[in-house]
Parts: sequence; C-alpha cells; structure tokens
Amino acid sequence: MQGLLYIVSGPSGAGKSTVIKSTLDKIHGFSFSVSYTTREKRPGEIDGKDYFFINKSTFLKMKEDGKFLEWAEVHGNYYATSKKFVEKKLKESRGLVLDVDVQGALNIKKIYKNAIYIFILPPSNEDLEKRLKKRGTESKDSLEIRLKDAKWEISHMKDFDYVIVNQEIKESTNQLISVLVAEQLKRERFDERAPFFFKKQL
Amino acid sequence: MQGLLYIVSGPSGAGKSTVIKSTLDKIHGFSFSVSYTTREKRPGEIDGKDYFFINKSTFLKMKEDGKFLEWAEVHGNYYATSKKFVEKKLKESRGLVLDVDVQGALNIKKIYKNAIYIFILPPSNEDLEKRLKKRGTESKDSLEIRLKDAKWEISHMKDFDYVIVNQEIKESTNQLISVLVAEQLKRERFDERAPFFFKKQL
Repeated sequence: MQGLLYIVSGPSGAGKSTVIKSTLDKIHGFSFSVSYTTREKRPGEIDGKDYFFINKSTFLKMKEDGKFLEWAEVHGNYYATSKKFVEKKLKESRGLVLDVDVQGALNIKKIYKNAIYIFILPPSNEDLEKRLKKRGTESKDSLEIRLKDAKWEISHMKDFDYVIVNQEIKESTNQLISVLVAEQLKRERFDERAPFFFKKQL
Repeated sequence: MQGLLYIVSGPSGAGKSTVIKSTLDKIHGFSFSVSYTTREKRPGEIDGKDYFFINKSTFLKMKEDGKFLEWAEVHGNYYATSKKFVEKKLKESRGLVLDVDVQGALNIKKIYKNAIYIFILPPSNEDLEKRLKKRGTESKDSLEIRLKDAKWEISHMKDFDYVIVNQEIKESTNQLISVLVAEQLKRERFDERAPFFFKKQL
C-alpha cells in the first residue's frame, strides 16, 4: 500500500492543530506525522505525540545529517519533518497528515508534487489578530511581525488545493474528513484499490 | 450563488439511487434533480420526487421542444433531465445532484465540462449479476443484454472523477457526502465563497 500524503497548513493562529487532532480522532486508517520542534511545550502537549521536543543543538545536528524532509524557522523556533517517519507511515496507512507552517508546506511541494495541500484559515482578519495577540506570550516577536508573517502566509493560499475556513471546530473537522476521504476515491487511484473489475471479465 | 453540478452514475443495479437518497437526507444545501422517465413506477417511488413519470408521447413532445439537457433510452425506457430544472436549482443551492445512467452522464459531459462526475460500482461482478437478475422483472431485455450493457457502462468509468464501490450503504453514503463537501472546498472556488480575505488588508 502506498498511502496519500496530506499537507495541512495555514497562518499560525488559524487553529490547524486542533482541527487535525479532532479529525484523526474520528477516522481510521490515517496517521499523523509528528514533527520535531525546538519550541517550548504548551500545556497539554505530549512529547512524541504532538511533537518531538528537542533542543537547538540536537535539531541542527539532525538537519546537518540530512534527517529532515523539510525544516523551517517560525517566530524564532525551528520545526522539521523526519524523512524516515514519513516514508514508513506512507507504507503503513491509507494517508499521512502533516501539520506544517506555510514555509514548510512550500518546501515539501518541491519534493511531493502529488501530495494534497490543504490551507486552514481563521474565520476573519479580526479573529486572526485576536489569536495572534494571545500567542504573543509564547513568542518573542512583536505583534506587527506576526501579522506581517500571517499576511505573507495567506498570500500563498494560491499554492494549495483546498481551503477550510475554521469558523467552528466541528464543521472544520467534517470538512477535513471529507477532503481526506474524497481524495482516496479519485478515479485515477481506483486501479490500485480494486483491480478485480479490470482483471475479470463480466 | 452558482452551485456545483454533481453527476452520479454507474451500471444499473449498482444501487446509486439508494446512495443518493441516503446522502441528501443527511446534508443541507444540496438539491436533487428529478428526472423524467417513461418507465413504470416502482413500489415506494413518488411522482415528482423520485421521477416525473410521463408517457412516451409526452416524452417525445418534450424532447422535440428542446426541453431536455440530455435523454437516453435504457432497457426500452426513456429517461431525461430537464434543462430548466437544472438551471433553476443551480442558482438556488450549493450543489445539484443528478442521478443518470452512463449514457446520460457522457452526454452531459459534452455540455458541462466543469461538473463533478461520480461513478458508483457494485462490490463485485457476482453481485452485479445478482442485482441485474432481480431487475429482470422490470425489463423486457434478456439478462445477456443487461450484462453486455453493464460491461459497456463500466468501460466508461475512465471518464469519471470519483469511484465509489457500493459495498455497504452507510459507508457509500459517507463517501458521497465527502465528495460533495470536498469539491466545495477546492481552492479555486474560494474566491466566490469568502472574498473578504482578499478585499481587506491585514
């Protein structure tokens, strides 16, 4: 089996991690790619489940050793996706979901052109600003820088296949489930799923 | 609003009408295109809801008057989709679902290239044969002809965007819902749905 790769991204503060978590709790056969990060653990986060939390020197060593599919620096913290983890999970499951910032998503797109790119937006600019202000406690950057970054990130929505406006977590979850499932049903992927119709004559 | 047009098709006996009905019962904002037919009403079917049941001479008059978007003859019965009905419903709803035979779907594809084409398959050839035998009571054609038609229909699966294998009605319903919803989330359609992100500066 070769599973599909789903890249879920969007400006920080759009709530993408919550939507992904809620989605993967509700469906079977899909896995989540756990990223490496140097940022501080937030309350409720679990090492090895939400992220692999590592320090900067370990991160830079892994990067040097070519262990990462992509890496990015966002608001002073490093994030990366492990090559080995992705390749293993794609063999084991129908689909693997990656939670990455927009920079990371664009880097992955250079390698995995056939992955499915999903952009999650906050419901409005006002809402985004509110969420970014709240995030201010974790980041050393000024609100101005965070808003500028979000603007750049939203300008790259054009590089994505689907857009989910995260108005209400339950609806966004259903929408993400729909994208994951519908992509599995694409006709050009049917050959691998149920070849009996072609092999057997009626 | 300009809704999306979804064409659901497949060999007769695949159970597409049941899947469509169950899908539209579960979601809001989507309508069903009621077809015209000259075939006999089956138990439980309602005129004006499942089909508009008309006789052959009325059918031929409407066809002559150019009222139909497509029409087809299947196993000695006529089926057609009303142009006016489709245009009206596409203005009123997020999506309009058409239940048509493969011939009809291919005819519609000549006109609506941007519609979404979904193919519903029975779980196996054996199952298809069983269902077609059961249908024998309604049709004057021999089983041999019905099998030959089904073979031709399945050979046109390549012209469709999605394939759903109707193994279990609940799962097929969830899959059809996923396709209807995911297509609404395509990024190129986002402009029309939530233009505020582009009009307002962060």
